[in-house]
This record gives sequence, structure tokens and C-alpha cells, in this order.
Amino acid sequence: MSKILTNRADDYSQWYNDIILKSGLADYSAVKGCMVIKPHGYALWEHMRDELDKQFKATGHQNAYFPLFIPKSFLSKEAAHVEGFAKECAVVTHYRLKNDPNGGGVIVDPDAKLEEELIVRPTSETIIWNTYKDWIQSYRDLPLLINQWANVVRWEMRTRLFLRTTEFLWQEGHTAHATKEEAIEETEKMLEVYARFAEDFMAVPVVRGVKTANERFAGAEDTYCIEALMQDGKALQAGTSHFLGQNFAKAFDVKFSNKENKMDYVWATSWGVSTRLVGALVMAHSDDDGLVLPPKLAPLQVVIVPIYNKDADTRTRIDDLANELVNSLRAQGVRVKYDNDENTRSGWKFAEYELKGVPVRITLGARDIENGLAEVARRDTKEKMQIALNELHVTAFGLLDTIQSAMYQKALKFRTDNTHKVDTWDEFVQTLDEKAGFISAHWDGTPETEEKIKEMTKATIRCIPLNNEQEEGKCILTGRPSGQRVLFARAY
Amino acid sequence: MSKILTNRADDYSQWYNDIILKSGLADYSAVKGCMVIKPHGYALWEHMRDELDKQFKATGHQNAYFPLFIPKSFLSKEAAHVEGFAKECAVVTHYRLKNDPNGGGVIVDPDAKLEEELIVRPTSETIIWNTYKDWIQSYRDLPLLINQWANVVRWEMRTRLFLRTTEFLWQEGHTAHATKEEAIEETEKMLEVYARFAEDFMAVPVVRGVKTANERFAGAEDTYCIEALMQDGKALQAGTSHFLGQNFAKAFDVKFSNKENKMDYVWATSWGVSTRLVGALVMAHSDDDGLVLPPKLAPLQVVIVPIYNKDADTRTRIDDLANELVNSLRAQGVRVKYDNDENTRSGWKFAEYELKGVPVRITLGARDIENGLAEVARRDTKEKMQIALNELHVTAFGLLDTIQSAMYQKALKFRTDNTHKVDTWDEFVQTLDEKAGFISAHWDGTPETEEKIKEMTKATIRCIPLNNEQEEGKCILTGRPSGQRVLFARAY
Repeated sequence: MSKILTNRADDYSQWYNDIILKSGLADYSAVKGCMVIKPHGYALWEHMRDELDKQFKATGHQNAYFPLFIPKSFLSKEAAHVEGFAKECAVVTHYRLKNDPNGGGVIVDPDAKLEEELIVRPTSETIIWNTYKDWIQSYRDLPLLINQWANVVRWEMRTRLFLRTTEFLWQEGHTAHATKEEAIEETEKMLEVYARFAEDFMAVPVVRGVKTANERFAGAEDTYCIEALMQDGKALQAGTSHFLGQNFAKAFDVKFSNKENKMDYVWATSWGVSTRLVGALVMAHSDDDGLVLPPKLAPLQVVIVPIYNKDADTRTRIDDLANELVNSLRAQGVRVKYDNDENTRSGWKFAEYELKGVPVRITLGARDIENGLAEVARRDTKEKMQIALNELHVTAFGLLDTIQSAMYQKALKFRTDNTHKVDTWDEFVQTLDEKAGFISAHWDGTPETEEKIKEMTKATIRCIPLNNEQEEGKCILTGRPSGQRVLFARAY
Repeated sequence: MSKILTNRADDYSQWYNDIILKSGLADYSAVKGCMVIKPHGYALWEHMRDELDKQFKATGHQNAYFPLFIPKSFLSKEAAHVEGFAKECAVVTHYRLKNDPNGGGVIVDPDAKLEEELIVRPTSETIIWNTYKDWIQSYRDLPLLINQWANVVRWEMRTRLFLRTTEFLWQEGHTAHATKEEAIEETEKMLEVYARFAEDFMAVPVVRGVKTANERFAGAEDTYCIEALMQDGKALQAGTSHFLGQNFAKAFDVKFSNKENKMDYVWATSWGVSTRLVGALVMAHSDDDGLVLPPKLAPLQVVIVPIYNKDADTRTRIDDLANELVNSLRAQGVRVKYDNDENTRSGWKFAEYELKGVPVRITLGARDIENGLAEVARRDTKEKMQIALNELHVTAFGLLDTIQSAMYQKALKFRTDNTHKVDTWDEFVQTLDEKAGFISAHWDGTPETEEKIKEMTKATIRCIPLNNEQEEGKCILTGRPSGQRVLFARAY
């Protein structure tokens, strides 16, 4: 069988595009920078969304939906926010087309110009806080814990399937609180929800941390983040949770009367993860033969493939065994499929399900079943086992947990092996170029040094880890004193 | 307690706005024609979406996601389609803002003008069929059964919460088939999925029918629809399913090689329902005290309210009873809440849960429980019953089915009572003005007559019912011969 994907070692970037396109996760579209999320990719996103949604609800949040469009003037109300977002957005200026009098199809109707332009939301703080003004009067209206699942648009110059697209799908939580302490607690709580989701469901270990001022969300007092390490040694920001202070409450004049009957501005948080997580999942685990998906999120967890011979009784026996197995696994909540399509060869099926990342494959072969056996193959390790027919359902079910946990352990070991403590500038540059990965190093705490390091090496400070060990040291660039190490990496 | 809502009899339209706003389903937004869907409204939509999604998947469909933006030129490719949609759409012309050199906040950057304008999708046939061109080569790629959950924008001059908003949420199915017969079968199958959902989940009886040529979807060969009757006697189109013939395949040049190895254009369908269904649900069932929600879709199905006395033991006893009841109902899959918030009076709670449409309310009163009883109240009929404590969970659970079915029967009786056979023009006009409802009458089959009737009375042909009885008669307006009655009404 000819090789479907470029090898990671040959060209990681090309491997990534190959795997996204060929495994059926997504496709390019006719609109620059926008992708089509194909059924396999959307199913993966649905599983992510459903699990996150469950956890948001379990932590007291409710879903709502706010308009796609934001009046242009709203963006200007929060000074830092407009700097961060106004520069890269889709602007609606007209509301009608008309037939071209010269016969050239349709043209924009100049008479249908909007009085105020509308921005396609790049994020919804402004439209939401403008609404919260009407919803919040007293401390009794707080906390207000709302999440929205939506599409957003940021006009990106360089795009990448899932990782950075002009339009993407995400969720954005927007909460309002009576006190600063409560808002900070919420910010940290949601970061932990993201971190646990990444580790327990995506099988991707993450560093929990806080961004430096340079890397903060536009309008936030503090941006918390989770950072993951990809197989090429680059970091990827997988989720952010922002403590917004009273910035948006002040910008949109959202005050409440507190328990002492005094008026105060409301405290805010916002937090989000996006379809970028699909890209992170792919880059963290997949191999040169295709996707490797963690069982908890895999759209299909077990696939059963028959290998018939010409004997009709054996065929019936295989079909019966397969159907029994399907029923028994489904009863345990497993997403399973029996693929007895006779128009495709089993070799083709094996490659296809490998490409699509199905965690467990069971082959019911005519010869094997005569010996009371079937072959069970793990996608993650490629290991194959001969299993007694009457133990198949137990083995397959158990393997899902085994694989989930093995994938996490493997990714964790990779991260441990690729996190380097570095104390000099030469070592820093050399490590970046030769080993990549996370680099734990001292920094003097100034935005200027951070910026200079970025210019010189393309490495950024991914975060200051939470509960960071305090340790005296010297900045790798300036030699000035530093009280703790921070985490550097080149990043997506 | 002061009246919260306008009475339906006084001003139906005002009642509708009141109930949407005050029950917390939705709110107006800062963007003309766009609404904010509040948590209660979004939860209702989520239950609708989840059930429909289950049924789409059970009928073999997969979800995917296509871009929000459509290149302007795509709209022109299907002649009828552009006429129907180009006239009312949001047009993105620029991709950047910049600081106003005169200090007036931000302005559109004239240097960031798009070469080709992008339309915010009013529906996605064009971008999807442009993609299908790459996905379909052979009959083996067919049928392609895809659905998308998305937001769409149609620039409406007169908007109404949920019923007609500039932006709305919906699902749009887009399928591709090898034969005309199979595409028609799909169109009819999905209409039936919608009809059963309306009847079995929304408790809203619907007429299944076909639109006249005048009312067809722009680009369709045939538009099937389900039509429901609201309490004010106006009709509401609740869902449509379109047989698109080969129109979009021809417009986007989507051909496939059939089993005989000959090239042919692909056959298409599309079908959709939207957040408009929330409006239909409200208008079909609710009353002057608030929402009346069918149990299968109600975000909260049972609420338990305590009425304490000053005896601490009794309070504990009530709390224990309530918690036991909650656990037992939850184990049966019931969405139940115990509201023992002491900051609000029980009278206020009763009114609030009535307004929000919770189907069953259980009151655990200090005096009642001493007699081994509790009060159970039905939202739909306002009936109150004294029920033995040890039977509460059985009664509450059973009531959910009873209410679901009673609501459907009530709505069905209303429709039967408000469907009138009419044979003369005078009777037609009189019935429209005095009774409203559906009018079953003869029509000569011409678009001109249909148009004239609409101009004279504002009544439109809602549909030609499926499996319509064939009956000789004379057109109510022109007296010309007609072979069947069609269904007229004034409509939302």
C-alpha cells in the first residue's frame, strides 16, 4: 500500500496538513482562511463540546446566545480591547445587493449603506457587557454565570487548518461577580476545568499558568492559560481564562447595589476554548499512519472487520458473532461499528480505520474463529493480540481505558523529556534549535527583555506556571536578578 | 399579585412580546433585528436541537460545518436563488478598522477593501454545493447526507422575537443523491421527521403539504412544508424540506459517474427548521399567566416548593421528603428542582414557575404533610390535586406523559374547530375576518389568482396538503374549475 501521509520526520508541517485533509477532519473552502469541518472532524468537536458543556453546567453555568454582529462603536469603549481586536475583523457595511445594471451579476446596493458599520464578533465581551447592563441591578442578580457556543471571526493573514482560521467555532464564558475575590476564583476554577478536560479527555498534559503582561488578552487584568507541548517540540496554547477586573463594567457602565446598598462596578471573567483543540489533539498524538484518538473523544471507538472465506456457514457465523459483539459493546455505551461492506477489501479498511484513528480494531477471520480466536489491534501501539471469542467484549471494553491512560502517559513522558532547565543564553539558543520543547529559565520580569528574546529567537514566554517554585537566579539575557523561572517555547 | 402579561384577548401581539421578554426566553439587543436568546430560551432550543439531532443521525445523517461567508459571485450562480436571497443580506466589504486620524474612535480602513465582497450566509446551498463538487465523483460517493447547525442572517425590515429575526439559529440539511426518486424520497422523509417532532415533542399538530410555485424556496423544484395553527387563528410555517432537482448541481457543475459509467448531474435536497420553532411553541400553547411548555421539551419538568412553618423538625422533614423525591425523579430521568430559597416567598415562586411554564409543581406544605399529603399542580390545566406522599413520584412522573398528550389533544381540537370549509368568496372573506384559522377552499391553480387573493385579503395558500382528497369544485375567486381544495390562512 502506498504511503498516504508525509512522515513527521520529513516535514512535520506537511504531515499535519496531510493528516487533517486525508483523515477527513477538514477541507479548505472557497473563502480565504475559512475551512470546512468535515463529518469526522465535526464529530470529534461534538464530543469535546458535549463533555465541556456538561462540565460548565456542573459548575453552575447556563448557555445563552448573543448577536453575531457588534456595532463598531462598542469596540472603542474599552481602550485596550479595541487595540487588540479592531485591527483584524470582518466589517459589514451594507445590507443589500442589487442586480448590476450593466449585467454583471449582483453588486452591492450603494443605497443600502448602514449608518453604523457592524463588526462580525471576534469575541463577545462588548456586546455581552452592553446587555449585562440591563440584567444586573443588585447583588441578588449576581453571580451571572453564562456561556455561549458560537462562531467568531478574526481576519488572520496566515491561517492553518484548525490551529488558526479566519472563522472558528468556540465557547466563550462571560461571568459577572460582586467581588474581586469571587471573580478570581471563577477564573481559576474554569482554568482547572479546561486543564482536567485536556488531561482526562484529550490525554494531553498541560501546564497551568499565567501570561505575562505582553501576552495578556486585550482588556484583561490577568490571563490564565493552559499550555501543551506538540510532538515537534512547539508549544500550543490550548485554553485561556481571563480575570477582567472592572474594565468592561466601567466601559459599559454596569453597576450594582451591593449588600450595604452601595453602588459598585461589577467584576468580570471570560474564558474560552475553540476548534483549535482539534488541531492540538492531532499534533499531540497522531503518527505517520494517521490519527491516534483518545477513546473518550473518538467518534468511533471500536471497529469490527470480517475476513470471510467462501463457506456460507462461516460467513453467517462471523456475522452472528459480530452482531452479538456490537450489541454487547453498545449496551456498555461503546461507539462501535461492524463494517462488512463487501465492496472494499479488508486491507483497505485496515488502513482507513488506522488513518481515522479508531482506537480498537477487531478482526473476525474465518480461520481464526475456527480456533475460537479473533485478532484485536490497538491503534496507539499497533500491538496485536489473539483473544478468545468469548472474551472479546471484555477485552475491547477494557482496552479503551488502557489506551486512554497509555496515551496520556506517553504524552506526559514526552513533555518531561522535552522540558529543559537552562541557565545561560548560549544554552538557551542551542536548546531551542536542537531540542525545542519547553525551556524553564530565569527572566528579569521586564516586557523589554521578553520582547528582545522573542525577536532574537522567536521563543515566547508561554506562562509563569501556577504555584511556581521561587528560586533566586539571573535572567538568561540580561543577567539581572530573577525570583523564579518561567516557561519559554516556540509556539503555534 | 399584579398582572405580569397583557391578556391574549386584549392584544395578542403584545401578549406575545410580553411573554417572551418576561419569561426570560429572549431580550432585544443593541443590533437592530437581532435578539439575545436568554438561558431559559436557549435551554428550550437545546432540547429541540438535541432531539432533532438524534433523529437526523438515526436517519443516517452526519453533521459538518461550512463557512459563515459566501463569495458574492456564488449567489448569482443559481438564477432563482439569487433573486430570493441577494436582496436581503449582510455584506462584508472590509477586513480591518483603524484609528480615526481625527480622534473619533475607529473607522473602516479604506485600504482593507475585499476584492470580492462576502455575504453572511442567508442559507448555505451555494457554498455547500461548491464544496460537494470536490467530494462527489462517483455513485459510490452518494448519497451524501449532511446536516449543519448554524447561524444565518437575512436582513429583515420587520422583525419579531424568534419568529423573524435578522440573525437566527437553525439547522440546514443538504443531501446529494444519484437519482431523482431517491432525492424526492429524502425530501419527504425529512418532512415526516419534522412533522413527528412537532407533534410528538412540541405537541403541535401540523398539516403536511406542498407549497405552490409562488411560495417555493428560491431554487427548489418543490417545497414541502409543515404548517401549524396559532391560538390567534394565524398559520405558521414550522419547517420546510426542498426537492432541489439538479438546479444546484448544474449551477456548480457537480457531476458523478453512475453505475453505467455515464456522467450525470447530482440530485439534491435541503431542509431546515430554526429558532422560529420556539415562537411557534409559545404561540400554540401558552396562556395569560405565562408559558405552557410540553414536558418533553421543558428545561425544568417538575419543581418542588416547600411551605415551612416555624417548627425546625417539620422543616427537616420537608427537606428530607423533597430530597428523596428529587433523587427518585432524577433516577427516572426527570428534570427536577427543589427550590427552598428562603429569600423569596412561595407565592412569588408559584407565579415565577407558572410564567416559566414548568409542567408540574409539587408543594410540600407543613400542614399537608402532617396529613400525609402534598399538593400537585398541573401547569396546563391549572388543576390541583392532593396526593399521598408515598405516591408523589409516581404521580409526578405519570403526569408528564398525561400533560404532553393533553396539550397535543387540546391543540388538535383547536385546529379542528378552526379549520373551515368554505365555498364562496363572501364566506371566505367573512371567515377570515371573523373566525380566522385554516380555510379549506377551491382555487383555480394559477399564480395570478393566488396573488390576487393575497392582495385582497392578506391570506396566502399555506399548502396543498399531502394525499389531498380530489374533489371537483369552483375557485372561490374566479369560479373556474378546480380539482382539489387547498389550505388558506393569514400567516406569520
